[in-house]
Amino acid sequence: MADNPIPFSRRADDFVTRVEQALGQHLGEPGQHPSRLHEALHYAVFNGGKRLRPLLVYATGEALSIPPDRLDAPACAVELIHCYSLVHDDLPAMDDDDLRRGRPTLHLAYDEALAILAGDALQALAFEILGSDPTLDQPPSARAGVIAELASACGVDGMAGGQALDLAYEGRQPDIDELETMYRQKTGALIRAAVLMPCSLNTEPDEMTCRELATFADCIGLAFQIRDDVLDVEGETATIGKTQGADQARNKATWPSLIGVEASNRRVDELADRARACLEHIDHDTAALAWLATRMVNREF
Amino acid sequence: MADNPIPFSRRADDFVTRVEQALGQHLGEPGQHPSRLHEALHYAVFNGGKRLRPLLVYATGEALSIPPDRLDAPACAVELIHCYSLVHDDLPAMDDDDLRRGRPTLHLAYDEALAILAGDALQALAFEILGSDPTLDQPPSARAGVIAELASACGVDGMAGGQALDLAYEGRQPDIDELETMYRQKTGALIRAAVLMPCSLNTEPDEMTCRELATFADCIGLAFQIRDDVLDVEGETATIGKTQGADQARNKATWPSLIGVEASNRRVDELADRARACLEHIDHDTAALAWLATRMVNREF
Repeated sequence: MADNPIPFSRRADDFVTRVEQALGQHLGEPGQHPSRLHEALHYAVFNGGKRLRPLLVYATGEALSIPPDRLDAPACAVELIHCYSLVHDDLPAMDDDDLRRGRPTLHLAYDEALAILAGDALQALAFEILGSDPTLDQPPSARAGVIAELASACGVDGMAGGQALDLAYEGRQPDIDELETMYRQKTGALIRAAVLMPCSLNTEPDEMTCRELATFADCIGLAFQIRDDVLDVEGETATIGKTQGADQARNKATWPSLIGVEASNRRVDELADRARACLEHIDHDTAALAWLATRMVNREF
Repeated sequence: MADNPIPFSRRADDFVTRVEQALGQHLGEPGQHPSRLHEALHYAVFNGGKRLRPLLVYATGEALSIPPDRLDAPACAVELIHCYSLVHDDLPAMDDDDLRRGRPTLHLAYDEALAILAGDALQALAFEILGSDPTLDQPPSARAGVIAELASACGVDGMAGGQALDLAYEGRQPDIDELETMYRQKTGALIRAAVLMPCSLNTEPDEMTCRELATFADCIGLAFQIRDDVLDVEGETATIGKTQGADQARNKATWPSLIGVEASNRRVDELADRARACLEHIDHDTAALAWLATRMVNREF
């Protein structure tokens, strides 16, 4: 595939539309039976999110010359997992958040039971899509690779494990290394999966490139989360769309609370530099990934 | 594979040991980090359960001449999904149960947040196993079939949808058809998946047999749930290992509450007869499935 002459920045909205259309098709009409659960799934998924993880899937696909129609299933699946994790993280027993992107969280808009079930059903739907999408038949190892990558990012060594650490650290202060481990699992694992799933689709596996992509993903995943901490301290509720200072209010350890805002910002910059260096080692068109990395790390939303 | 001369009834315990060993390997040591989550996963999985769904996988495998080592992954996966569903169903926001098989439910033994996360991680582990097990590489459609079957049984048209209906029916009485639909989704779908996953492993697909097996599974799934309702009315807490009369206490519609105990038992017998008739139409050794169906439908625990 020739390098696309139109920069990714001007095509990103098209990819967002693309994945949202695909998500809509997978979710079906909101009026279906049982209607409250269907409505809740729509509420959870069509939430004004930036779709950064699907964009990472498509941008990695550009670097690996994988056409978008082979990336729709992984893009949908990773976003569904992300949406389910937000719903469960917001639950009263977890972070007990009232606002998510400026709207009531799902358990307030519906109820707690439906929020638990909606999250459960979204996780199942992600794997149903990956289990049934015919574009994953080739190469023969593609489906296994994609599913194993995503599932392990969700599990006890990934997102769920990271969230368990997060809760454990409300009782005692973690040190900076423990916080980093937690971030790598809680948000980093899914960002890594978004980048590594397209690697599993490659008909000509290129281990060196995939190793660089994995490091790239790890760096931007961690930077993204540290930036989120800084925004929680600095931002205003209206801008970030959730309750500002929520971490402080819960007396939660964050990057700024452990090493300060300035040092946190420096760490973000270092990680962004390392991420960019990884892309320079890759002998493909990584312009889309570079643009997305900048957007994720310098984000002001 | 020649018919096994030792009846399945005398080999069932070996299959239980087999799947529990495999589950133990997948879960790893309980001391791993994060340790409370790992412990909670063990608590959720090693729960004194009868492993009926894995037994269905192995028994169906016997009918289809699929060797047990190709069935371990689906057997583990379906049991992990079942275990996660019990943990989430017991949550305060859902059925709010204190006892499960004679022990405190997971959210009481640990806490609510960990119960949510443990369920989430168990679902992910089920799909991680199916995504990574090398025995599912052949036939080429096996992995896709198994994963799509299990995932759709978990989702909005299966278990999660059934649980949503169950909660909706606490507000108003469903009629018997609505209750049947709910049961087919809430517990029936996973029992069906346990029987249909081995069909996806068949190197020589036999559509007629798989259709009969699907009907067989639907009948025993529904009979099993109606029998559960009857036990809830008749049983004693010590025998059934959960709070007796829990459905009545919540004013939940059940089969006996809508049509009485006697008519419920008649419906169980009819469904068992239909299930047996399906097996008679199958030109393979279905002795294992017949024994298991009797055990599931006449169970007294």
